Amino acid sequence: MTRFRELWDQLAPIGRDPDSGGYLRYAWTPAELACREWFRAQADARDMPVEEDGNGNLIAWYGSGSGPAVLTGSHFDSVPHGGAYDGPLGIVSAFLAVDRLPRPTDRPIGVVAFAEEEGARFGVPCLGSRLLTGAIEPARAAALTDRAGVTVEAALGARPTGNTGLLDRVSRYVELHIEQGRALEVPVGVGTAIWPHGRWRLDFAGEANHAGTTRMADRRDPMLTYAYTVLAANKEARLRGAHATVGRVSVEPNATNAVPALVRGWLDARAADAETLSGLVEAVHKRAVERAARDGTTVTLTEESVSPVVDFDGGLVDSCARLLDAPVLPTAAGHDAGVLSAHVPTVMLFVRNPTGVSHSPVEHATDEDCEAGIEALAAVLA
Amino acid sequence: MTRFRELWDQLAPIGRDPDSGGYLRYAWTPAELACREWFRAQADARDMPVEEDGNGNLIAWYGSGSGPAVLTGSHFDSVPHGGAYDGPLGIVSAFLAVDRLPRPTDRPIGVVAFAEEEGARFGVPCLGSRLLTGAIEPARAAALTDRAGVTVEAALGARPTGNTGLLDRVSRYVELHIEQGRALEVPVGVGTAIWPHGRWRLDFAGEANHAGTTRMADRRDPMLTYAYTVLAANKEARLRGAHATVGRVSVEPNATNAVPALVRGWLDARAADAETLSGLVEAVHKRAVERAARDGTTVTLTEESVSPVVDFDGGLVDSCARLLDAPVLPTAAGHDAGVLSAHVPTVMLFVRNPTGVSHSPVEHATDEDCEAGIEALAAVLA
Repeated sequence: MTRFRELWDQLAPIGRDPDSGGYLRYAWTPAELACREWFRAQADARDMPVEEDGNGNLIAWYGSGSGPAVLTGSHFDSVPHGGAYDGPLGIVSAFLAVDRLPRPTDRPIGVVAFAEEEGARFGVPCLGSRLLTGAIEPARAAALTDRAGVTVEAALGARPTGNTGLLDRVSRYVELHIEQGRALEVPVGVGTAIWPHGRWRLDFAGEANHAGTTRMADRRDPMLTYAYTVLAANKEARLRGAHATVGRVSVEPNATNAVPALVRGWLDARAADAETLSGLVEAVHKRAVERAARDGTTVTLTEESVSPVVDFDGGLVDSCARLLDAPVLPTAAGHDAGVLSAHVPTVMLFVRNPTGVSHSPVEHATDEDCEAGIEALAAVLA
Repeated sequence: MTRFRELWDQLAPIGRDPDSGGYLRYAWTPAELACREWFRAQADARDMPVEEDGNGNLIAWYGSGSGPAVLTGSHFDSVPHGGAYDGPLGIVSAFLAVDRLPRPTDRPIGVVAFAEEEGARFGVPCLGSRLLTGAIEPARAAALTDRAGVTVEAALGARPTGNTGLLDRVSRYVELHIEQGRALEVPVGVGTAIWPHGRWRLDFAGEANHAGTTRMADRRDPMLTYAYTVLAANKEARLRGAHATVGRVSVEPNATNAVPALVRGWLDARAADAETLSGLVEAVHKRAVERAARDGTTVTLTEESVSPVVDFDGGLVDSCARLLDAPVLPTAAGHDAGVLSAHVPTVMLFVRNPTGVSHSPVEHATDEDCEAGIEALAAVLA
């Protein structure tokens, strides 16, 4: 059994839902805390002291060189019923890459586990890295609540400390991650950029009514406007080579025998550049408004969050691509690397995903490709 | 102030949500129990003894003639955020119609309040009348649960008794109800039939995936198939002069940044006859399956409940229409009258609904039309 397979099998059962086969590892829940225990055990086994940054992020330090440090890692938390690789692969690979480095190193290496990268529990993705970099106010982060009303402060056990200057000691960040599309035809690629992306809420309002007795002509049914908008978003994204998804919906009163009063849909949209993205969202909104006029309903568009384009450090991207003889590619997914990129030179390594499936129990990479990823990460760190 | 307005104002505050203005009067909850207390007070004031039938239904008896009895009434319980008139109007009108009858009567009149007509708490509409007529097994009804896991047996305080022979003493049932469309242009009409209707669940299965990174061409997104089917159901119903509604949906995992694995929609469909209804459901299913092939998804159709057409008693309908000089009309809504119709000659009276809106806080009838309804009900009982 390879070292990779050995460590991977240790993590595999933690937070796995036996029905879906997917992971429920939300930040600071027992499953994610068990992953953190595993992290501490791995650090202990390597005599790597673990630093807690007061924001829920863990850093295990390797080597003691006096130069500025290199950070590498990822996150343990998952989306609901997510896959095994998204996040943990970067942490496992970081420990195994460190094992291949000489000791003492000429600069410290920090293996990092960021908190709440997916935003699945508290709604703000990359919460740990945003706190560390000062991109979110600690007071605002502390007050975020999950669906049960638990605050970040209560989950963390303290008010987050925010930016404590840790990054002043860091000169580079490298994050290894499973690729989340099918763009890679070799085991490892180098990330160049993160597409601009965002979330918009669409509130479709109509009139609650009896589903049995109300004549079709007398209805103001917001489910129709919603359905039309879902199809329009798909078409408009395809026309632009962009991505649009409506994966979350809520309905009031959500009863079989009632025409809804209100349907809310969340639009996730991403594109290669900011103009295409805003053009896409405008086109979807325009078509929704047109259909609403026909349905006797109304549409309200609310921007919930927008992340601008992130270009990783050009020098780092080029030198990694040359060193590894690897292709370069952008990603449409947000990552802690996108947040850190505004503060330290950053690059990502992607490991091939044969099916392209991610955020799903069937997300997968081969052991061979994961080994190649560890090899590549070790080369970059060295 | 009229007697109608006086009684109506007594009921108005009970179970009214101050935010929506709609009613939350689920069976055997404090709001509905308060309505039952009001019922007992009205009966006491008229020296009408109240019988509990062991199924949650209340009957207040008027007169002591030896002939078989006439029942009239409706229900107190509401859909979530429902209107004031759907149900209670039939009970208030029954008491006020009795006030206009001579005493002694030549046959007893029973004013009835049926339990759980909407099925909003335990999922089975007309639960009280189904138990009374033996249309549902008491053991099955006893075990039904609400969303909090409370059983009917616990809510009722005892196992329902089922059919106790009460209807052997009854020769007619008359139910007055607010009309739930805009079909009436005069204050009162006579119901001829209840459209056949039913509920079907459509499970759209695809593949969970990352909303950001998955290429549009690589997706198997069941939300698209769902959206197309919602629009198709609307079109197919309009083509047939039938009714189709998708007012309830559930999504897995229902996350903004995930292509869904599964979308479930509930189709409520109704038509004037059984052939049109089955043709409508088949057409919707066919179009869903066609679209699923395009989306790479699958569709499974499950019939959850179907109620066949109910024709009210032809002789009673004719004589009521002549007596009242009133138009006749069918309804597309289920009622306790539909359940009783299989056991005793039954007819319904409808009171005009100026906007046609029902199952909504803005459901409304004018006081004048309600008075005309009471007059008509008194004439029919006499």
